Amino acid sequence: MSIITLTTDFGLADGYVGTMKGVILGIDPTATIVDISHDIAPQDVREAAYTLYTAYPYFPQGTIHVVVVDPGVGSERRAIALRMPQATFVAPDNGALSYVVAGERVEEIVHLTNPRHHLSPVSHTFHGRDIFAPAAAHLARGIRLAELGEPLTDIVTFPLPRPQVRPDGVVVGQVIHVDRFGNLTTSIMPKDWTDRLLREGIIEIKGQSIRGIANNYAEGTPGKLQALIGSSNHLEIAVSGGSAAQSLEAEVGDEVLLKVEGHEDG
Amino acid sequence: MSIITLTTDFGLADGYVGTMKGVILGIDPTATIVDISHDIAPQDVREAAYTLYTAYPYFPQGTIHVVVVDPGVGSERRAIALRMPQATFVAPDNGALSYVVAGERVEEIVHLTNPRHHLSPVSHTFHGRDIFAPAAAHLARGIRLAELGEPLTDIVTFPLPRPQVRPDGVVVGQVIHVDRFGNLTTSIMPKDWTDRLLREGIIEIKGQSIRGIANNYAEGTPGKLQALIGSSNHLEIAVSGGSAAQSLEAEVGDEVLLKVEGHEDG
Amino acid sequence: MSIITLTTDFGLADGYVGTMKGVILGIDPTATIVDISHDIAPQDVREAAYTLYTAYPYFPQGTIHVVVVDPGVGSERRAIALRMPQATFVAPDNGALSYVVAGERVEEIVHLTNPRHHLSPVSHTFHGRDIFAPAAAHLARGIRLAELGEPLTDIVTFPLPRPQVRPDGVVVGQVIHVDRFGNLTTSIMPKDWTDRLLREGIIEIKGQSIRGIANNYAEGTPGKLQALIGSSNHLEIAVSGGSAAQSLEAEVGDEVLLKVEGHEDG
Repeated sequence: MSIITLTTDFGLADGYVGTMKGVILGIDPTATIVDISHDIAPQDVREAAYTLYTAYPYFPQGTIHVVVVDPGVGSERRAIALRMPQATFVAPDNGALSYVVAGERVEEIVHLTNPRHHLSPVSHTFHGRDIFAPAAAHLARGIRLAELGEPLTDIVTFPLPRPQVRPDGVVVGQVIHVDRFGNLTTSIMPKDWTDRLLREGIIEIKGQSIRGIANNYAEGTPGKLQALIGSSNHLEIAVSGGSAAQSLEAEVGDEVLLKVEGHEDG
Repeated sequence: MSIITLTTDFGLADGYVGTMKGVILGIDPTATIVDISHDIAPQDVREAAYTLYTAYPYFPQGTIHVVVVDPGVGSERRAIALRMPQATFVAPDNGALSYVVAGERVEEIVHLTNPRHHLSPVSHTFHGRDIFAPAAAHLARGIRLAELGEPLTDIVTFPLPRPQVRPDGVVVGQVIHVDRFGNLTTSIMPKDWTDRLLREGIIEIKGQSIRGIANNYAEGTPGKLQALIGSSNHLEIAVSGGSAAQSLEAEVGDEVLLKVEGHEDG
Repeated sequence: MSIITLTTDFGLADGYVGTMKGVILGIDPTATIVDISHDIAPQDVREAAYTLYTAYPYFPQGTIHVVVVDPGVGSERRAIALRMPQATFVAPDNGALSYVVAGERVEEIVHLTNPRHHLSPVSHTFHGRDIFAPAAAHLARGIRLAELGEPLTDIVTFPLPRPQVRPDGVVVGQVIHVDRFGNLTTSIMPKDWTDRLLREGIIEIKGQSIRGIANNYAEGTPGKLQALIGSSNHLEIAVSGGSAAQSLEAEVGDEVLLKVEGHEDG
């Protein structure tokens, strides 16, 4: 019994997600299908990549993760499947796997070219249904990756937003995700920095300063900014009982500084 | 092991959908339940009918599809179950099955009158929980349709929005669905028209013209209107990288013309 | 094979809910996971408590219900599991179980302190993933409640919004839930009042009066207010074919009166 997860920008109002599930169950009636998100902003490959990266490590080894955020559907962009020790991924080759391949060894990649494992005919606008769902379901049933198409040696990735250290020692990161609560996930991972920087550091965003790292949301003063280590081990900026995104009018891409006192923002 | 799908206007914030699933699993713990959509606009039977029609053919034969978009709940409108070669449907008799019965042979219809297969008591406001979910679950367990109630010979349907051909040869259709991406599905099915009309045709909507049919979304000029054949074989109007619904301020019911050059819009 | 339900304020855009499901399936691959709601308003414990209360009685006996609406995550608030004859609940100890414990006998409560049944390390911000999901999955696999931590004798609850009867006999209730259709669920349960009050009674809300109780939504005059007995046996105020919440600009907490004619609102 295999697990297949879905991460798409299809929303839940149209029948697209249900249709993909029908296709999967038609090929592997025993598959357990889990939604990671269908509310990725339309065609936002980076958001899909980030969301998948936070969720996939918590699934059992061997889970098959399908991403369909696919602005290039029907064009020359490749459809791929990729195996890593922890999981197998099925996605358009457009950067959606950028985070996951940065963290682990890639064992095998194929181009999903074998028409035997596509629906027929293949539409030009819905490869989630016609190519990705069938590929995942056939893998769930146990076929080898190599049967899905020709081997590939690399895939398209975008550069991950890694923080930079300025000559004066200030760490320069950015907001990489805004969640439902308005919490701002940043590209700064506390594990990469010294305890002193973290304990004595000052975090700056949108002209506001936060001193120190709180243990949890409840510890903060209601309505005030706080910094903490989020559940994916990234530095996170929150407002206790409120929304940091609203308070700061912050969004993905905004700059976040981490500095030890004495350093001036230059 | 049976598959039951759900298409409702209940949204996902209230506990209505979860409640229906609890009822189903109480009767058939082995059922696989799949959401098609719960974001049908409140009481929009036509949207439910269309959404079901695009999704149901992709489910395995024998799947049981439940629709609960039910403005007449508790009134004299009938609750029905209906069997076709491909699938069985459970729904209020209000037109929700109009598309599906237009496409295939109906083998058997029953009025869900047998109280043995209802929850007790039956509320006046939530037949999804009290009548439709139990009916689907009992069918999933293998009871015959006839056990659910009395036979019927026909059901309520609304006329499908089929395109008309004007004396001058212009095909007059309409927008029948707007999806999450702002793509406009029209009532015009390319398979019904000559290659010439399609290849040389001009599509008009809201005063804008589109010439020719693109292969996929990516082929279009970003921000420009394009026409293509959507994943359900309907003529679709899209904006590459954007929303046709927004660009055109278009909505369901808007007129779409397909004409060969030389014809004037009269 | 066990059923685990989830009720959270996580929304469906981020990967939080999917992550919890991954954790559950890693511990109990045979669990059937059902969403009750993930669109509880952020940190609205009362809405979570109400939603769970309407849904849980319809699940099979022994179902495990998880609630994660948890403004105090990472603080001293306790994480608990609680067994009743009908179901087992896993939640933060913040009032989320107020309705369910009011209605049935509590058999056993534990504080989820046993680190063997947590993920490791436990984050300070996502106990849904690190504590609640694992607890539910271990219970689904059959461990005894007592293995999850130390016994407790009571839990945090908030006072349920019960209607009051004024000296003049007028029943004073309030709106306790607004659903997707704009229907207003009130704290008044018709079973608690005399037939006379119900049949001859007048319902007042926001300066509007409704006489009598309709049988169903369809019975009302389109666009007019109506009162009826909702699917959870609460007095409900609706607008046939419309939204009572919009028509009345009503919201949770608004006062609702039930009175027999001759009584004046004083």
